[in-house]
Amino acid sequence: MSIRNRAAIVGIGQTEFSKDSGRSTLRMALECILEALDDAGLRPKDVDGIVKMRANDDFFEIDLMRSLGMENLRYFNEIPHGGGAACGTVASAVAAVASGMADVVVTFRSLNERSERRFGESSAGGGVGGWMQYYLPHGLVTPAQWVAIFAQRYLHEFGHTTEALGLVSVLVRKHAATNPHAMMYEKPVTMEDHQNSRWIAEPLRLLDCTLDTDGACAAIVVSAEKAKRLEEEGRREKEEGRQEQVRGEEIERGYRGQSPMTGGSGGVPPTSLSRGGWEGGGDRGRGKAVYIGAAAQGTGSRTEMMTSYQRKSLAKLEEAEATARELYRQAEMTPADIGMAQVYDHFTPFVLMALEAYGFAGPGEAPRLFREGRVELDGDLPLNTHGGHLGEGYLHGFGHIVEAVRQLRGTAVNQVPGVKTCLVTSGTGVPTSGLILAAEV
Amino acid sequence: MSIRNRAAIVGIGQTEFSKDSGRSTLRMALECILEALDDAGLRPKDVDGIVKMRANDDFFEIDLMRSLGMENLRYFNEIPHGGGAACGTVASAVAAVASGMADVVVTFRSLNERSERRFGESSAGGGVGGWMQYYLPHGLVTPAQWVAIFAQRYLHEFGHTTEALGLVSVLVRKHAATNPHAMMYEKPVTMEDHQNSRWIAEPLRLLDCTLDTDGACAAIVVSAEKAKRLEEEGRREKEEGRQEQVRGEEIERGYRGQSPMTGGSGGVPPTSLSRGGWEGGGDRGRGKAVYIGAAAQGTGSRTEMMTSYQRKSLAKLEEAEATARELYRQAEMTPADIGMAQVYDHFTPFVLMALEAYGFAGPGEAPRLFREGRVELDGDLPLNTHGGHLGEGYLHGFGHIVEAVRQLRGTAVNQVPGVKTCLVTSGTGVPTSGLILAAEV
Repeated sequence: MSIRNRAAIVGIGQTEFSKDSGRSTLRMALECILEALDDAGLRPKDVDGIVKMRANDDFFEIDLMRSLGMENLRYFNEIPHGGGAACGTVASAVAAVASGMADVVVTFRSLNERSERRFGESSAGGGVGGWMQYYLPHGLVTPAQWVAIFAQRYLHEFGHTTEALGLVSVLVRKHAATNPHAMMYEKPVTMEDHQNSRWIAEPLRLLDCTLDTDGACAAIVVSAEKAKRLEEEGRREKEEGRQEQVRGEEIERGYRGQSPMTGGSGGVPPTSLSRGGWEGGGDRGRGKAVYIGAAAQGTGSRTEMMTSYQRKSLAKLEEAEATARELYRQAEMTPADIGMAQVYDHFTPFVLMALEAYGFAGPGEAPRLFREGRVELDGDLPLNTHGGHLGEGYLHGFGHIVEAVRQLRGTAVNQVPGVKTCLVTSGTGVPTSGLILAAEV
Repeated sequence: MSIRNRAAIVGIGQTEFSKDSGRSTLRMALECILEALDDAGLRPKDVDGIVKMRANDDFFEIDLMRSLGMENLRYFNEIPHGGGAACGTVASAVAAVASGMADVVVTFRSLNERSERRFGESSAGGGVGGWMQYYLPHGLVTPAQWVAIFAQRYLHEFGHTTEALGLVSVLVRKHAATNPHAMMYEKPVTMEDHQNSRWIAEPLRLLDCTLDTDGACAAIVVSAEKAKRLEEEGRREKEEGRQEQVRGEEIERGYRGQSPMTGGSGGVPPTSLSRGGWEGGGDRGRGKAVYIGAAAQGTGSRTEMMTSYQRKSLAKLEEAEATARELYRQAEMTPADIGMAQVYDHFTPFVLMALEAYGFAGPGEAPRLFREGRVELDGDLPLNTHGGHLGEGYLHGFGHIVEAVRQLRGTAVNQVPGVKTCLVTSGTGVPTSGLILAAEV
């Protein structure tokens, strides 16, 4: 049995991304979940499943339930390992709806990573046990330092300079520069900027590292049958000229619909950020369904979270290779069938290694994809079209999922014409996950 | 679509239960997982999914992988809310195998709750935020105190005395007294003992509260098709006279099979504790499959973990009612179809309320089930036949799952002859979960 195209994402939501949201992660989660439900033509009481990313949340699914007036959850769980979990939340939701254990599953990420806890800071002194005790005394105390070890090996093994890393930075920031939702909107960088930016942990410079961000994203997963029913209902309503908003219940604890997304009116925002440049108007609600061709998690050998140094090779990503195998098997596709990719980009070297793991380039050859223009918007594998973590903002991979849905709906700001399939990958260097999404089935 | 009988538990494992295990929770988890895989006729490298209970674990699924030599996990997640999660781990595993996202999923619980962190202790001073800030200042700082509020209301509303609670204690301890694996083996209690035991939080006495326990349990979930293949292979091997042990890979980090369960030889133990009184011998490995007729999670209104006091009624368990509805719907059964029940019993009053929520008695009428002998071993609904949390040990509901499998295989120490179906319920007072297991399909 395969889950291929048996589930779909029918709604997406997204708050603004900023350095200081000025509100709680719970509140942002509520905002983007309501928006996503609205987009899907669903109400909070339709929800019977929630899958969260585990790491460092300060609320539970029961807080969402209580705040939104959901009635009963038949399915709820959490995916561990930070950004590695983003597509994993969708995978777990797919398992639920494909097996009939839930009808409507909310997946999301909400973070005040810039104004509250910054993940890039040192984890020394935090009483970290387990394998970290062997690394912290040697000064390997931040994610950038952990990743630098892999990056150094990759550059050394394949004879690249740090300009190979700069290629990623320049491309992704170019896409962010034309995305009004991006923290780095209208702020492209050049290779010279990259090379002149200060060291964070050699060979990683400032422009190789993700932006810490406040914000939230959500995606609603239902079965393919339900997705078709929802689309049909949406079409019928439009034909009948009904313009009424399908509004979520009011949030119990003070939130009264004044989302930055919905302009405080509870009505139609002039432009929905979550759907990029797509003018809302009468089209708001009942967003087009995007089908899930494959959804999987994956792990590697001798995994120690982000310091899996006891492996044969540090110049490749075993987790991503395992996830890739499973995704292509499920989707019955090869890399040649993938129309675009939203690749987890918290650190530039892992983007190169991920592109290789997913079969788009041989070992050490990913930089060529950039030099040959293949990952540009008009290339054969447009990459991180929203500006990714390095330019749009760092929602632990969830922004990549939302962008993939926009692209396949044809509503992205940097829209790639006629794109039919999109690969989405989650955190690298940790147990990970991925999706292959399809515009049609 | 329904998951009814589409998955099965094919292996169980269990360490000894004690006040001081003398080893880490990781090591105990490895021991019981190896035993469960052995029981199923599987090897660690066959495992491609792990579902954990989230609360207060000190290791990740990657530690199990690394230690046991598992090759890749395609599916892994965690279920929140402590004991409420036990059956939820199996439910998530069912979603995985029923949807084809994993083949062999390990579920388990490992705790040093007696020798390390005792969950019954005060959570004040721990910097607890959220709703707890409204309860802690009023002296509601331990689980017993949180539960006492519900218990007081239950007794008041239905005119019971604390002897109603004692009924649970006496019954469960009676079953523990004949279970050599139980911490309270050969230590039955009387109603007089119950009434004379000291107050913990009125109306709860010492004998109304669970035992803190060190130990671990595991269960292996596969699809029904795979379960049948495994049974067939087991039969063939036995017919061919092959007695060779299906042994898990050696544990990487020091563990060399000297489990108290396997007697240090790596061979066949004289009696497998995990399978009760069933003599191992030639029958070891390839345990009988037990089918999962239903598996679900459930929540209630205005849930605040264990202090959901803002509800219409404190004398019933909304979560359990929601879970019951879903389980009976999935299994196409009514309470009358249930042959026995393993009900989460960390505090006696919640056993009464759970029996009512699952439809075995009307509101306030559960004590009658005890007084009429219906929950005895020879009654129509034998209850907590292993001695439950109050007598065998407190593995956050996982011991109940393992006992249900033993009973349905016909290998329990307090075996109920010919039992065909068993309800298993998880933590009460929190978002919860449950299973209906069946001996045959």
